[in-house]
Amino acid sequence: MKLADVQTPALVVDHGAFEQNVQTMAAAHPGPRLRPHVKAFKSTALARELVEAGHTTFCCATVREVEGMAAAGLGTDLLLANEVLDCSRLGEIVHAGAARITVAIDSPETIDAAARGGIREVLVDVSVGMPRCGCEPDDAGELADLARSRGLEVRGVMGYEGHLMREPAEGKGAAVEASMKLLLAAHAAVGGDVVSGGGTGTYDCNPWVTEIQAGSYTLMDTEYVPHAPAFRNALYVWTTVISVNPGGWAVLDAGLKAFGMDHGNPKVLDAGDLWFVSDEHITFGVREDRPVRVGDKVAVLPAHVDPTVALHERMFVVAAPEGLGPATAVTSVWPVDLRNW
Amino acid sequence: MKLADVQTPALVVDHGAFEQNVQTMAAAHPGPRLRPHVKAFKSTALARELVEAGHTTFCCATVREVEGMAAAGLGTDLLLANEVLDCSRLGEIVHAGAARITVAIDSPETIDAAARGGIREVLVDVSVGMPRCGCEPDDAGELADLARSRGLEVRGVMGYEGHLMREPAEGKGAAVEASMKLLLAAHAAVGGDVVSGGGTGTYDCNPWVTEIQAGSYTLMDTEYVPHAPAFRNALYVWTTVISVNPGGWAVLDAGLKAFGMDHGNPKVLDAGDLWFVSDEHITFGVREDRPVRVGDKVAVLPAHVDPTVALHERMFVVAAPEGLGPATAVTSVWPVDLRNW
Repeated sequence: MKLADVQTPALVVDHGAFEQNVQTMAAAHPGPRLRPHVKAFKSTALARELVEAGHTTFCCATVREVEGMAAAGLGTDLLLANEVLDCSRLGEIVHAGAARITVAIDSPETIDAAARGGIREVLVDVSVGMPRCGCEPDDAGELADLARSRGLEVRGVMGYEGHLMREPAEGKGAAVEASMKLLLAAHAAVGGDVVSGGGTGTYDCNPWVTEIQAGSYTLMDTEYVPHAPAFRNALYVWTTVISVNPGGWAVLDAGLKAFGMDHGNPKVLDAGDLWFVSDEHITFGVREDRPVRVGDKVAVLPAHVDPTVALHERMFVVAAPEGLGPATAVTSVWPVDLRNW
Repeated sequence: MKLADVQTPALVVDHGAFEQNVQTMAAAHPGPRLRPHVKAFKSTALARELVEAGHTTFCCATVREVEGMAAAGLGTDLLLANEVLDCSRLGEIVHAGAARITVAIDSPETIDAAARGGIREVLVDVSVGMPRCGCEPDDAGELADLARSRGLEVRGVMGYEGHLMREPAEGKGAAVEASMKLLLAAHAAVGGDVVSGGGTGTYDCNPWVTEIQAGSYTLMDTEYVPHAPAFRNALYVWTTVISVNPGGWAVLDAGLKAFGMDHGNPKVLDAGDLWFVSDEHITFGVREDRPVRVGDKVAVLPAHVDPTVALHERMFVVAAPEGLGPATAVTSVWPVDLRNW
């Protein structure tokens, strides 16, 4: 199969860039020093490539992701790095011995949900500067005690410094240190072996944790590259030019249902200047020096990889040593099998 | 089943509001005067409700939508209102006699694709002011001749005045008239019975077409309501409060993978003030007069319905005469069975 045979729009992974990203991260954080975050790619086939690179512990954001990873035999050590009020589906997996599952808790209610749902291991999620989930650092010890009183094993703490992923490089290290000191103080009160945190944007300036939670680095997107320049764009949406107008514009067959739009418009690369994105289309201005014809193929770079992947059923993998074209061979197909909830 | 039993995040349809929207549109454009646009809701179960309301002709935006509608026995008259370069899957349906399929064409290449793919009927898509698909009005007659020379029946023209959906009400009628005069001039050159156009935003000021293509009116969203105030929000994302912080914020378990974000943030209604949306979460400021607890349910209004629906597997339908709550009964479940391509 070649890219010319792939119905558009379709996700395409440049395996050369992907492999370079994976090796760069594995060199910095080998084996369990990295807990790859499944939410970025939602594919057990991609996760298997990370196992090949030495990582056997994973982060998930949804119950479905945990279920899918366990069913695929990738359940050595799965952390649901999110708060859940109904742990019953997770408890069934634990009860069946199909995976080791640890769940984040940050309140008496989430502890109760874990205990009632049959979960055995938890991390205390600590707020380290971004207004999202996580208890106040001062409350972490008390929550750990409560969890233990409910029969749960407390493996340690997690805290996500998500507000610092896009900090300018010169101040990032100090800001991460200040944030992680909150986490370490909580850890001192909680105990356990695990201090989990970080992401693609802080992988190289967060020596404070025992494991980095990063996922975007595998595929990257236009929004993230400036904040983590060691990694390259490896994910494209492969599209077809379906209309060319003498007024100077052309139209691609991929739109709002093919791209996560929260970080702005995707990039049509050197094909022209993107004008706007609608439900099923991208309209772009055709450059005089690069005319396009109906039927031409164009690779488009998403602005944000995580919600883009969530809109697609599969990724077509290509070697692409010299760019993507209709003749590029598809070497494998990775189902996006961890979508939805 | 009650809403308390529905795993969050989940799409919920207020059937009372939906039914009122459907009846309002059916009164304005009964039967085949309306060609409901499947792209807005991507569900054959919802489409069946429109058949009940008298509409038997439908618009689709993707090959998958046409396939699904045909397989569901809803193929009386399906228009793929979009340009397609590979019509082979559509041609198979036509060949099997499983549906009547008409495809939009706007170039020699799309005519060739239709003829080679086994399509028998086309509409000439005409550009009427928005830079997207559609031939120049002056070229429509020639394209119709070319299509007929390839053995295709030309049923007429279509043209989407999408740039006028959000025009202020006072000037909208005149702007639509000017746009539709381009379409009618093209129709005079093309022939055929069909002049297809319009949308939810112009359904009440476009008497120039023989059929209106509208879909958003069924479910609506916060972005569209000001431009089509006859219709009400009928679609919500049902969420759970998973974390409450003493700093004054709370977190819902729905984020960028549950909402189309191109038209901005969703609305958490009276639950509080939305602060930001991340991959799996909404963080909102808790109002002093409306404290929330972990485990509370919150209904959130999407800003743009079409890409929101495309992120979900199903819609839970409720009667909801007096608002949504955990005790609200779910009366049916509509699979979102027309996603992807």
